Amino acid sequence: MRLRTAGLVFLYFLHLNRPGHDLPMRFDQMTIVGVGLIGGSVGLAAKARGAVDRVVGTARDLANLELAAELGAIDAWTTDLGEAVRDAALIVVCTPVDRIADVILQAALHCRVGAIFTDGGSTKKTIVDVVGDALPRGVSFVPAHPLAGSEKNGVQNARADLFVNRTTILCPGCGGDAEAFGRVEAFWQSLGSRVVVMTPDEHDRVLASTSHLPHAVSAGLAAVTPMEWLPLTAGGFRDTTRIAGGDPTLWAAIFQANRDSVLAALGQFTNRLDEFRQLLEAGDGAGLVHWLGEAKKVRDALGS
Amino acid sequence: MRLRTAGLVFLYFLHLNRPGHDLPMRFDQMTIVGVGLIGGSVGLAAKARGAVDRVVGTARDLANLELAAELGAIDAWTTDLGEAVRDAALIVVCTPVDRIADVILQAALHCRVGAIFTDGGSTKKTIVDVVGDALPRGVSFVPAHPLAGSEKNGVQNARADLFVNRTTILCPGCGGDAEAFGRVEAFWQSLGSRVVVMTPDEHDRVLASTSHLPHAVSAGLAAVTPMEWLPLTAGGFRDTTRIAGGDPTLWAAIFQANRDSVLAALGQFTNRLDEFRQLLEAGDGAGLVHWLGEAKKVRDALGS
Repeated sequence: MRLRTAGLVFLYFLHLNRPGHDLPMRFDQMTIVGVGLIGGSVGLAAKARGAVDRVVGTARDLANLELAAELGAIDAWTTDLGEAVRDAALIVVCTPVDRIADVILQAALHCRVGAIFTDGGSTKKTIVDVVGDALPRGVSFVPAHPLAGSEKNGVQNARADLFVNRTTILCPGCGGDAEAFGRVEAFWQSLGSRVVVMTPDEHDRVLASTSHLPHAVSAGLAAVTPMEWLPLTAGGFRDTTRIAGGDPTLWAAIFQANRDSVLAALGQFTNRLDEFRQLLEAGDGAGLVHWLGEAKKVRDALGS
Repeated sequence: MRLRTAGLVFLYFLHLNRPGHDLPMRFDQMTIVGVGLIGGSVGLAAKARGAVDRVVGTARDLANLELAAELGAIDAWTTDLGEAVRDAALIVVCTPVDRIADVILQAALHCRVGAIFTDGGSTKKTIVDVVGDALPRGVSFVPAHPLAGSEKNGVQNARADLFVNRTTILCPGCGGDAEAFGRVEAFWQSLGSRVVVMTPDEHDRVLASTSHLPHAVSAGLAAVTPMEWLPLTAGGFRDTTRIAGGDPTLWAAIFQANRDSVLAALGQFTNRLDEFRQLLEAGDGAGLVHWLGEAKKVRDALGS
């Protein structure tokens, strides 16, 4: 679309500066590698919003691919990665984080020129470090992390609106150009999410605090609670331990992929809890009120 | 109601063994001391379910009493504790935990013979220790803890269904008899809750793990998160930190009233997190999966 009248120059300028301007917004074929909660939701959302013409799914587990097709998340599927990506314009890798880099490097050997990779991994630095400059010419990777997980895994929990009003973090790409970045940005926006751009280092440091540490803490709380006390829990326990129901294998991989930042965040947290212990041991009521008040200030800023 | 036919003897026997059998189920006047979330909800629920004829509210804060009356949680109010309890058959003390014992001892001087106290405090042992045998003859106290709090305080958040399908823990009473206990048990049941009986020691030890520790941990997580990272949080952070929005003064009093058990629970938790740290430092993937799996087992047993 071109705006023609002089009076609309300012609007035209705004339009020029919108991400994805003048880039083809629709991909003819999208291939999703790993069709679980995130991969399945990418398929459902992209189809519902007309972001792609055709969705191919690939994974190791045949039954899972069949279920994804039945649920309408993918149009076709194969367990052969090379075949799955051969005709794809966009490849969204939604495997566990410890497999993303390998999948990209392996699939890239079979891609057409101009193919763009993005992913849904909860960590970014180790993936970007491995993919690095190793992609074939004409193939690019724009790392992404949609902040839209859940303790409920599997394509059976996938939803077309999973990304609506959520944030997707994008990192500067590997082997790509501004056009590839703009198209991936427009893609995640087309699924309903806000896009924020950060370096892989920043991403991993922030997410260690805002996502990975809370998971470890939630799991720690759940594990020290004897089963027979569960009937004596209420909403507070239920909320704080909800994410402890997440998949142990997925999360072990996330912690390992972001080890240093998670250990640093854990150190800050245990220091903070140690302050609490000292205040309580000392019977310092005013100190406890202050300690709790600082937390309330942060939580109130988040809203309910 | 009396069952007359011989064929119904077994049913009659069951009926005899129901809690509260043959006790007057309805209190003519209930006085609520402290009309916040819990006190206000007790008023709304007791009126909605016909458990009382008339509800009197008392508190230090006049504006709060007026709001409670406006919302229908109380029928009449006074800031004079003695006047408030003079004609009460049941007195429900819903002040912060550090004031419950004093309120009971002070109010008991003004009560009629046969008056029964119960409370809504989140800790039990320090309260029972103080009230002990100090009540006047003919006045009794049956300690209670409805597991129905929220991070939202104040009578404006009170709800008639707050106790429905929740657990209320009762402790053996002070200065009372089986009849007083049975009437208080029937009262909390009439508000919709299940009753579980525990000693004050047991109560405080269990709640330290299932409620007080989660609160401290949630507050610790929130406090170590820089405000500017809040837009980069998702559902996991939101859930784990929800209760950190609770009232710092109320919670500081709870922690102090249950200090030893909270410190013990905190020690178990930090030991558990230290295992996590060691596994992560060692890069022990299988160990992390096992560590997370133990937590998932507990959380899955609780249900969503």
